[in-house]
Amino acid sequence: MKAISIGLLGLGTVGSGVVQIIESHQDKLMHQIGCPIQIKKILVNDLTKERAVHIDRNMLTDNPEDVIYNPEVDVVIEVMGGIEKTREYLLQALKNKKQVITANKDLMALYGPELLEVATENGCDLFYEASVAGGIPILRGLVDGLSSDRITKMMGIVNGTTNFILTKMSKDGSAYEDVLKEAQDLGFAESDPTADVEGLDAARKMAILATLGFSMNVGLEDVSVEGITKISEEDLAYSKKLGYTMKLIGVASRSNDKVEVSVQPSLLPETHPLASVNNEYNAVYVYGEAVGETMFYGPGAGSLPTATAVVSDLVVALKNMRLGVNGRSAIAPQYPKALKGPEEIQAKFFIRLHVKDEVGVLARITNLFAEYGVGFDKILQLPIDDKGASEIVLVTHTASMAAFEQIQQQLNDYEMVKEIKSTYRVEGENTK
Amino acid sequence: MKAISIGLLGLGTVGSGVVQIIESHQDKLMHQIGCPIQIKKILVNDLTKERAVHIDRNMLTDNPEDVIYNPEVDVVIEVMGGIEKTREYLLQALKNKKQVITANKDLMALYGPELLEVATENGCDLFYEASVAGGIPILRGLVDGLSSDRITKMMGIVNGTTNFILTKMSKDGSAYEDVLKEAQDLGFAESDPTADVEGLDAARKMAILATLGFSMNVGLEDVSVEGITKISEEDLAYSKKLGYTMKLIGVASRSNDKVEVSVQPSLLPETHPLASVNNEYNAVYVYGEAVGETMFYGPGAGSLPTATAVVSDLVVALKNMRLGVNGRSAIAPQYPKALKGPEEIQAKFFIRLHVKDEVGVLARITNLFAEYGVGFDKILQLPIDDKGASEIVLVTHTASMAAFEQIQQQLNDYEMVKEIKSTYRVEGENTK
Repeated sequence: MKAISIGLLGLGTVGSGVVQIIESHQDKLMHQIGCPIQIKKILVNDLTKERAVHIDRNMLTDNPEDVIYNPEVDVVIEVMGGIEKTREYLLQALKNKKQVITANKDLMALYGPELLEVATENGCDLFYEASVAGGIPILRGLVDGLSSDRITKMMGIVNGTTNFILTKMSKDGSAYEDVLKEAQDLGFAESDPTADVEGLDAARKMAILATLGFSMNVGLEDVSVEGITKISEEDLAYSKKLGYTMKLIGVASRSNDKVEVSVQPSLLPETHPLASVNNEYNAVYVYGEAVGETMFYGPGAGSLPTATAVVSDLVVALKNMRLGVNGRSAIAPQYPKALKGPEEIQAKFFIRLHVKDEVGVLARITNLFAEYGVGFDKILQLPIDDKGASEIVLVTHTASMAAFEQIQQQLNDYEMVKEIKSTYRVEGENTK
Repeated sequence: MKAISIGLLGLGTVGSGVVQIIESHQDKLMHQIGCPIQIKKILVNDLTKERAVHIDRNMLTDNPEDVIYNPEVDVVIEVMGGIEKTREYLLQALKNKKQVITANKDLMALYGPELLEVATENGCDLFYEASVAGGIPILRGLVDGLSSDRITKMMGIVNGTTNFILTKMSKDGSAYEDVLKEAQDLGFAESDPTADVEGLDAARKMAILATLGFSMNVGLEDVSVEGITKISEEDLAYSKKLGYTMKLIGVASRSNDKVEVSVQPSLLPETHPLASVNNEYNAVYVYGEAVGETMFYGPGAGSLPTATAVVSDLVVALKNMRLGVNGRSAIAPQYPKALKGPEEIQAKFFIRLHVKDEVGVLARITNLFAEYGVGFDKILQLPIDDKGASEIVLVTHTASMAAFEQIQQQLNDYEMVKEIKSTYRVEGENTK
């Protein structure tokens, strides 16, 4: 019984996890595939570095060609990260008829459609479950489990770092900078946290989810992004007072064959399934016309969880190899890309204002909203320390983004409005 | 392009949903499969009955042979329910080389292994995603998404009726009988609710989950079952006071290649992901050695959610047909059945006692637990109205079921113990 041979590109956190799972779960894997799996070659930067897992040094190479052109390698697993060079390696691997598994969200968000096309042309599988939400099998959930349904909305907590920070800020009432520092000390945030806290990492994952869920090539450039760095303790306190939980939410919604994909801090009702997803956990909430509400929850990162997704993809590719049907599962997008404009994007909105403490201020402001046909779910007006000023917090009914933006512009021109302190979307009250 | 033809056994709630989805999502289905799907024949009891969906009357038949022996039918979808007769139909369909999709948990819990074997022998797919947790793609999650991991524990809220009842009882402090009545009026409980409230329905689903997740043929007879009919308002009040939520939990756990599968009302910490699964919703929590904690959440029943799972199975079977690889995905169990004995089943336990109001009672009782090496997480002692008696509530550390049973026997013999009012397992504090 000939063993299947694997080539690894990269041996960092996820790569070490892959090696560990293939070794410790060999029995189970062999039972499913019908033959042993062996790791043949591993591309690394530094041949001499100490490794977290026990590795035969002869397997290591610093020459990518030893993996991607190696006639003995059946499957290439890419866990090295990076974009341009990595794209080149994977294109070469596919052209050399290697099945490819990748955990690389940056790559898939940018070059996913191209790579999938080349994979299909060459009769190879290209799987990337690990690129979104680590150990959660969400992509297979969309592609297989909900394949018969029409998905109209997905909301994701798909970045563990920001969810950890927001959970801590909400629970302890601490300031953003303090919690970021703590997250860095605990290893939940990178020393340069920009990609996480500015929402870029989540945006990449939402582009991948939207592409699959809506069968439409959604690129990173189509995702509007706002991070968590401007969230204040006041905003968190108000959201709690109003029965909401603040989360960095990736939204992908579809109506009339047009889609919106965005990432922004949003308020969710405390009773929403996503509201209790805490700390570094991830979850993707999916609304389908027929199935209604479903949610997939689990660890969004980490060596072994992410490696589980990689090796589970590997199992599917190997089963396909034995059946001789690789390269048949990628389905080209059904719809041309069509994005919603601001007038088509519907949400509820939270807005917090400082206004002059004058008679009739609240009436003037609510009249302005009324002119745009926007009503209110919740209204709070409170005195603040600043003399002669008071604070107004409003949560609107569902309104268009365009109307809300125009209202904000007008508010900025109002002499009685001192400052718009913050605005957020309120999600999860209209599920569809 | 020849259409694929479907034969339906049954046209009740789920069957109507299947017809509806195949019709309304024809474009999406065709895009995935590459050819149209048409419904050819539908077995019904009553040819003249009014139907919830628009149906060409010529499709209907009351002769099962028109479906299972029909040379034009490629796939048989079984949504009629029942066991012995249905088993016979599906065996015949498989022997006639029909792909089979079923939503029938009773059938799969009893005859799953036999049917899967016959399917494989005949080169046919037999899929049954809809049999567990309705619209939630949990079986594919286990088989594909987590295929590389070793699953050690699953906990499921897999019965919507009981979850609805327990949610209402906890929220409103109402009595079981009143809420059952309400659930029946709302259509969430059957007029004969036995299978639901006694835990049998959940037990069938747990047998299916354990068989797949542990790769071991677990039958219904291997599942120990306790329903929700004895849960009192006092127990719910105490569980809330101690920070727990009461749920009907199906547990399937594995250690040292032995498994335990059971269904019983259990206390979960309020912060556990399953604790916020409310009303008629279902969820399955899965603990894997590598992936850690994951959870799949969604509607556990209902026409369209369940039909989504059926048609998603259909899509996989049809893709397999086009690739010529049907009948290759069922994997025979890897392990022989081995069940844990009571001494190997570990849990925390809640016990509520009425005792005589005498000096030293609590000390005697805690000493008894200590003799069995069982310590405590929580202890409450309260006076009650009954003169000369008081109430003691204990939550133990992790202990064996055997020890806890022996302790209960001894407590029953103690003259100072008036009555053991209730006992429950406490789950979700030791995840593994």
